Amino acid sequence: MTRADLLLTNATLITMDEHLTQYSPGALAVQGDSILAVGREEDLKKDYEAAQVIDCSGKVLMPGLVNAHTHVPMTLLRGLADDLRLDVWLLGYMMPVEREFVSPEFVQLGTLIACAELIKTGVTSFADMYYFEEDVAIATAQAGLRAVCSQTVLKYPAPDAPSWEDGLARAREFIQRWKDHPLIVPSVAPHAPYTCTDEILRATAALAVEFDVPLHTHLAETVREVDEMRQGSGMPVIPYVKKQNLFDAKVLAAHCVHIDAGEMRTLLHAGAGVAHNPTSNLKLASGFAPVVKMLETGLNVGIGTDGPASNNDLDMFEEVRLASFIAKATSNDPTAVPAQTALTMATRLGAKALHIGHLTGTLEPGKRADFILLDLSPLHNSPNFRRDPNGIYAQIVYAAKSSDVTDVMVNGKWLMRAGQLLTLDEASLLEQARRFAARIDEFLVKREQSVLSKLIALGGSMEQESFEIQVKIKVADPAPVLKGLGHPEITIQRKRHYRQHDVYFSFDDLSQGRLRYREDDFIDEKGQITNVRARLTLLGQKREGQFDHDVILSRSRFYAPATNPLRFYREYFNPSKEVLLEKDRLRWLIWYQNEEFFVNLDHLENPDLGYFLEVKSRTWSRRDADNKAHLVAQLLALLGAADGVPETKDYIEIVA
Amino acid sequence: MTRADLLLTNATLITMDEHLTQYSPGALAVQGDSILAVGREEDLKKDYEAAQVIDCSGKVLMPGLVNAHTHVPMTLLRGLADDLRLDVWLLGYMMPVEREFVSPEFVQLGTLIACAELIKTGVTSFADMYYFEEDVAIATAQAGLRAVCSQTVLKYPAPDAPSWEDGLARAREFIQRWKDHPLIVPSVAPHAPYTCTDEILRATAALAVEFDVPLHTHLAETVREVDEMRQGSGMPVIPYVKKQNLFDAKVLAAHCVHIDAGEMRTLLHAGAGVAHNPTSNLKLASGFAPVVKMLETGLNVGIGTDGPASNNDLDMFEEVRLASFIAKATSNDPTAVPAQTALTMATRLGAKALHIGHLTGTLEPGKRADFILLDLSPLHNSPNFRRDPNGIYAQIVYAAKSSDVTDVMVNGKWLMRAGQLLTLDEASLLEQARRFAARIDEFLVKREQSVLSKLIALGGSMEQESFEIQVKIKVADPAPVLKGLGHPEITIQRKRHYRQHDVYFSFDDLSQGRLRYREDDFIDEKGQITNVRARLTLLGQKREGQFDHDVILSRSRFYAPATNPLRFYREYFNPSKEVLLEKDRLRWLIWYQNEEFFVNLDHLENPDLGYFLEVKSRTWSRRDADNKAHLVAQLLALLGAADGVPETKDYIEIVA
Repeated sequence: MTRADLLLTNATLITMDEHLTQYSPGALAVQGDSILAVGREEDLKKDYEAAQVIDCSGKVLMPGLVNAHTHVPMTLLRGLADDLRLDVWLLGYMMPVEREFVSPEFVQLGTLIACAELIKTGVTSFADMYYFEEDVAIATAQAGLRAVCSQTVLKYPAPDAPSWEDGLARAREFIQRWKDHPLIVPSVAPHAPYTCTDEILRATAALAVEFDVPLHTHLAETVREVDEMRQGSGMPVIPYVKKQNLFDAKVLAAHCVHIDAGEMRTLLHAGAGVAHNPTSNLKLASGFAPVVKMLETGLNVGIGTDGPASNNDLDMFEEVRLASFIAKATSNDPTAVPAQTALTMATRLGAKALHIGHLTGTLEPGKRADFILLDLSPLHNSPNFRRDPNGIYAQIVYAAKSSDVTDVMVNGKWLMRAGQLLTLDEASLLEQARRFAARIDEFLVKREQSVLSKLIALGGSMEQESFEIQVKIKVADPAPVLKGLGHPEITIQRKRHYRQHDVYFSFDDLSQGRLRYREDDFIDEKGQITNVRARLTLLGQKREGQFDHDVILSRSRFYAPATNPLRFYREYFNPSKEVLLEKDRLRWLIWYQNEEFFVNLDHLENPDLGYFLEVKSRTWSRRDADNKAHLVAQLLALLGAADGVPETKDYIEIVA
Repeated sequence: MTRADLLLTNATLITMDEHLTQYSPGALAVQGDSILAVGREEDLKKDYEAAQVIDCSGKVLMPGLVNAHTHVPMTLLRGLADDLRLDVWLLGYMMPVEREFVSPEFVQLGTLIACAELIKTGVTSFADMYYFEEDVAIATAQAGLRAVCSQTVLKYPAPDAPSWEDGLARAREFIQRWKDHPLIVPSVAPHAPYTCTDEILRATAALAVEFDVPLHTHLAETVREVDEMRQGSGMPVIPYVKKQNLFDAKVLAAHCVHIDAGEMRTLLHAGAGVAHNPTSNLKLASGFAPVVKMLETGLNVGIGTDGPASNNDLDMFEEVRLASFIAKATSNDPTAVPAQTALTMATRLGAKALHIGHLTGTLEPGKRADFILLDLSPLHNSPNFRRDPNGIYAQIVYAAKSSDVTDVMVNGKWLMRAGQLLTLDEASLLEQARRFAARIDEFLVKREQSVLSKLIALGGSMEQESFEIQVKIKVADPAPVLKGLGHPEITIQRKRHYRQHDVYFSFDDLSQGRLRYREDDFIDEKGQITNVRARLTLLGQKREGQFDHDVILSRSRFYAPATNPLRFYREYFNPSKEVLLEKDRLRWLIWYQNEEFFVNLDHLENPDLGYFLEVKSRTWSRRDADNKAHLVAQLLALLGAADGVPETKDYIEIVA
């Protein structure tokens, strides 16, 4: 008789090993942190004498699930913003909130809450990628789960690193300190090819190689990423990162939605693991990953939940079921990715994808004691057919729920017994989460109160204060204006020709003002577009003051380069009304009587409002403004518009 | 103060009405079976005096979910067979088991178990379609749920009706008896266009019109159905059933996966409801229903689980989430079918699709008191953001689980309080289900033990006992045979020319024999194929006896017309080995010496084995066989094959 610490008996035991070996009734012996033996109950009862024996009657004993890709601290942002396009969600909500709130405290709390949910839903290992990753590691070790923890490095300023070099240094120190931890595998995460430079990809790969740790990244998640990569580098994503030596490292590649057969072979030869994220890919409409082909190629394809802010949970039972369903539907074959394959992805293949297959993912002697017990007695698991040996996998994948998990052991230590968490205080975590949520709610509510604060939250916006004199007059015919500009007292310094497409957003609350999205097409002498520029401007609802001769004093405006498509701003600002206004503008910068003036000859084409002449000049005092107003009157006479009635409304006010 | 039976207070109350009105804190007053009032807590507390007041702090009060299409008794077949193609699953497993087991007792038990699961997961109404539907109604009324119960009518013999006329009569009697029931809406279900005749479609529509009850059917579920309909009738499914007057009735159409914009308009004008079944469509690889377009068209699209044998549960929380996810992914738009729309489908629109929108689906005064309470305190629902009024829908759809349902009321009666079922004895139901499952397991295990019993289970197979004399000889050259057949002592009665494609399935257990799938292509004088016939034959492993002159006595064989594609049989019988053998066969029926013989001249082309001459004759006694053996020897001489060595093996034995 060999001595063991613990013997589990009378279980429906599924090992998830390469032969999908099952024992019923089966038994498993644990010694220290590892599995000593697995087999038929009668054999183990003969061979092992254990300090503690647990009867698993009516339960499935199986490897814990492996969540192959997530961002655990984002549990604190779950449900913050949904049903939005990726850019609106990320740039409009996640990043502004992360910039404001992500701290070591935030990360540890979010991780502890995630670990509670992971344990309750039968996950024993996961691969994470976030900021302050050492705090993810600290909290995960406290909870007792196994994880590959990957410190993010990217080219933008991050909550934990003002530059990518700082992020890399943070990753190095983290890896050095944690590389021998029994539960945590520290790792580095160049965020994605489109958020990293070549230099970052090379440096992070070198770091991973130096310490022989995994490298975790997002690859080929969206069509847009692949298209932009092809345009920028002339090749798809996988060959491109290969060129940057990424595959020198042991790579865990999340998503791989848009890759072809050649890229799959590259991943295979590189020994890279893939994390398939069904819910995330569906919810963000990223596409359908070629899971059947990746499995046929021989890739280690694990399954991940992605972050709980885009899922909105960490429930691997749902992901496994969905991985099977989506594969069937997209390959038009209901026999594709059967239950046993889906469950293999979530256990053995997932562990291999994380490069920890030697430690976990199956119930085999010598591996760490990472396993769960599932209760098959709840109603939704009834009845139980046992004719087909694959029936047990179908039951787990298609009928069982995460709430059927009763017990969880990781590394030889119980984390949950009979549904009770042993390492975490759920009530206290929930209360802390509630307080964080209230602060974030308050922050966003305040921000969402004004269009201005939403504009500022996007970053890059600037306030411009202008004091100017301006006059606008409708003209029937542009010819006198063009002729008048040839007058010898007028010196033309510069002439420009634009086509301006202005979209005005307005809001139920008129005090918010209007937001103008302007696209300027610069037109050359031949009528060709030479450049395009887009800019956002927030126009106040009313002028601060209007004086004689239409002198405008102190109008402040906020503007920002519009780096996202119009659609983004439409979805982000959610205007109650939208008006399009298109015009052709000839713009001259002239000298007249030693003063500088702008002359605009606008042809309003859509809607068709005819020609307008605008004369403007910057000013800095009431006295200067009065002087310029006289000069403007003279200019109007020279340009054949002396008899016109000034139009005091903006174009949008004429239209609206 | 108005008196009420019950007042629910302090709830996050979502009405799911047309304006998605919410009250927080909200209250609801119940009187008898109906909702008396809904509104702000402070208003209702002022206006209503209730015998009982329940504080719903921390909970969502919302309409119960509507499961728009299911087959509830099939809970007893959950997990029986998975990861199979539709035909293998249906013809190979479901129908044989249904033929054997479906009875009023089976149906009532399956319904009670389903009702327990439905109540626990927050469903208050459902639309069912099965056999013995009156027993579904009895059990549903006992459980206290609301349902549209639809008696199946189809052209095949059913467990409850040997003919469609019997099914129709059963439907009529059921409707007459139940049409005024407070919970049950009796209805008729012509199963699907491909399982019904025109006559059935017309007769069921007329019945539904006569009693003004809904008509429930499956429409346009698979590409195959639509293709076959186009081939057979020259039109798609919806116009076809319209032509059969189906839309004279109030139709509830399940699936509608493969319909176009014109068909959607037809459904809209007919006032038909649609039941979208996301899991079923994915798991059976039926396709992606055009949900976004159906909603844009203005159709009442509800959500259903379909039967639990193909899902494998009745969890509407999963279906709602999936309906949103799939719509986003297939329309490449993450803003498609946002949470509030998905939840509307599962409540208000679902009730309208079932033609019971006047009774249920929203929390509005005058409607029946059908509602649920959801607990938002579990970890996976944390944190709660309240900035966005749509956040509550996102939380319910993307994060909450069916296990968060704590209380369920239908028609003013509590069916569950604090997670405890009040109308059903779960333990007893589970025990009865266990006994049924054991019987079904035993039945199938026995059947699966032999290829023969699996063949018989498909139906239509016949046993053929043959006593025959036969000889087979390899010939180098077909010319002498063809020449010999012109001998004056030989009278040719009939000549046939086939190309035979034979696929032999063999099994690890050799005693099972071999199963041959033969496709005979009949070839005419011009070499054209005039007809194709497929047949399955089970060939015994060894002959009962072999005598002089290769007289075979008593070889019995089972054969059956092969009405399904080869792929079906491959997946159903799951052979360990498969061999293809193709030959060209010239076959003559001749008279020689007043006896009838078959002469086959076979050219084995794939694999290339050359020519064989076979001479056969039926026999009935040893003496007759001896006589014919002499005649065969003479025939062989006439056909130039007297010197050949008889080949005693079958072709497959030569090849294998």
